[in-house]
Amino acid sequence: MTKLLMNEPQNIINEMLEGMIFSNPEISLDIDERVIFRTQKENKVGLVSAGGSGHEPAHAGFVGEGMLDAAVAGNVFSSPSPMQMLSGIRHANSGKGVLMILKNYSGDLMNFRLAKQMAEAEGIVVDSVIVKDDVAVPDSTYSTGRRGIAGTILVHKIAGAAAKKGYSLEKVKEVAQKTIDSVRSMGMSMSACTIPGLENPGFSVGEGIEIGMGIHGEPGVEKTSLKTSSEIAKILFGRIMDDYDYSGKEVAVLVNGLGATPLMELYVFANDISRLLDESEIKPTLVLVGNYMTSLNMAGCSLSILEVDDELRELLKTPCKTLGLNL
Amino acid sequence: MTKLLMNEPQNIINEMLEGMIFSNPEISLDIDERVIFRTQKENKVGLVSAGGSGHEPAHAGFVGEGMLDAAVAGNVFSSPSPMQMLSGIRHANSGKGVLMILKNYSGDLMNFRLAKQMAEAEGIVVDSVIVKDDVAVPDSTYSTGRRGIAGTILVHKIAGAAAKKGYSLEKVKEVAQKTIDSVRSMGMSMSACTIPGLENPGFSVGEGIEIGMGIHGEPGVEKTSLKTSSEIAKILFGRIMDDYDYSGKEVAVLVNGLGATPLMELYVFANDISRLLDESEIKPTLVLVGNYMTSLNMAGCSLSILEVDDELRELLKTPCKTLGLNL
Repeated sequence: MTKLLMNEPQNIINEMLEGMIFSNPEISLDIDERVIFRTQKENKVGLVSAGGSGHEPAHAGFVGEGMLDAAVAGNVFSSPSPMQMLSGIRHANSGKGVLMILKNYSGDLMNFRLAKQMAEAEGIVVDSVIVKDDVAVPDSTYSTGRRGIAGTILVHKIAGAAAKKGYSLEKVKEVAQKTIDSVRSMGMSMSACTIPGLENPGFSVGEGIEIGMGIHGEPGVEKTSLKTSSEIAKILFGRIMDDYDYSGKEVAVLVNGLGATPLMELYVFANDISRLLDESEIKPTLVLVGNYMTSLNMAGCSLSILEVDDELRELLKTPCKTLGLNL
Repeated sequence: MTKLLMNEPQNIINEMLEGMIFSNPEISLDIDERVIFRTQKENKVGLVSAGGSGHEPAHAGFVGEGMLDAAVAGNVFSSPSPMQMLSGIRHANSGKGVLMILKNYSGDLMNFRLAKQMAEAEGIVVDSVIVKDDVAVPDSTYSTGRRGIAGTILVHKIAGAAAKKGYSLEKVKEVAQKTIDSVRSMGMSMSACTIPGLENPGFSVGEGIEIGMGIHGEPGVEKTSLKTSSEIAKILFGRIMDDYDYSGKEVAVLVNGLGATPLMELYVFANDISRLLDESEIKPTLVLVGNYMTSLNMAGCSLSILEVDDELRELLKTPCKTLGLNL
């Protein structure tokens, strides 16, 4: 039996969200709709992210100055409803339009379409971008086209900085889309994860690892034997470079833990990545190592690389202040 | 077999430290002595922490503006040598004296005594404080008297702010000691941890949990059956309150993950703590939830509570900028 630190599984989302506002007085909770939002609304383009829970700090942990204005939490690995998303849009709206940042999962997209219609009927201008950074598989269990994974955090950061600077909705969307077009990710899992309320994981990784497994345990590229960090780094980096050649470019790098892998191991992996970047003369302007887009208690990590130009560098380096990221 | 993301186990500390400086350009690494230090030395009292590795981000992740000037990394769960500590003291010294923040483990204390003698022979003024915040057991496998655990992070933060404000060595030590006198911690483990290079954990927690286990797997108060988060919160909070009654006080709270417990669970636990604080009319002025003092890939958490007065509140709220804590 997997041991989890929790109370009744049916209350885990609400209790987690309550714990988040306890630890950050600058955010508030609409408990009925499971929306975390900024207590002090700013007069600017509103940014919302919505998705299933189990990926903490994503997304509620990125609500705050310089990132999101609201985050909508579904059940574990399940899309929030259209009504929940509508509520998130309302909380983020200050009259200058709202941009929804979605990851490419069919349920999220479908529910957002309905939420958008309802918001527009109320006179709120709503647009969206869809992150699809995972190069592992062309389509997946829950998506048509590539999945959205940890690269989403960089979209939150950059769009958040743009909105803070007073960019228009059109322009915030443009830099968010540029970020999406320039970021690629790939992950690796060393263990399965256990949905709260179930006794055991719903699947198994066995004695080896799975390359390219999704953040909900969706099948990846291959199951293989246990490899060293530097071998895994080469595989993930190689797949990303096959899709987008970052050689000689300036980049931001995100080494993301999936929840149960300690920082010691993530830093070892980051060091292996640093050597591969050197070999390809890739110059990192920002490196993040930590747990940003997790999969419950899954062990493993993902690598995201973003090409950075002058505009994105400036937006990346703008301060932000959230539970999950302070720059 | 436990799966770890690493290369050769004998290189794990060096590779981890290299990964840390890769992700933070404001720190540098003395690889021979395994000291992480601030690249730009400030003219102020120097702060150093030293201890075994496997507790990341502690301590190297807390080197930076407003916290430590240097951190000395031993092998996994092993004290750094006197020569390593001397090197850390030298890196932190700008001529205004150096304060070493130790956790109460016999090996650390013994090696520091020698390092202090050597530093003083070089004309460096060195003093120290010893954190012993763990109320679980009066003495332990590796300590005479209480162990030092996650409360150490609050000592780093407060002493770091005091040093940044230009306090004298004597005054920095005084606020560090006040913090130590006012903080209590207690932990709970749901799994053992695996030393890199060994195939399996050196001990087992079994199907239940262990209350008060140390951050190196030292025996705690009792092994018991798996409990809910709110039951565990009551036990840890109750033991702390038996030792130091925080009723009606203003406090800082640290909910610390041990490495393999995801944020979702830590926030659920934090919410349970918030209810207990309410019942005792305890007013949190700062709440931190995350992985600050880990035990490799151990699952579980600890709770630390610090009584805060005007002086400590101001120092807690002074900005700091490190890999492990940005305020």
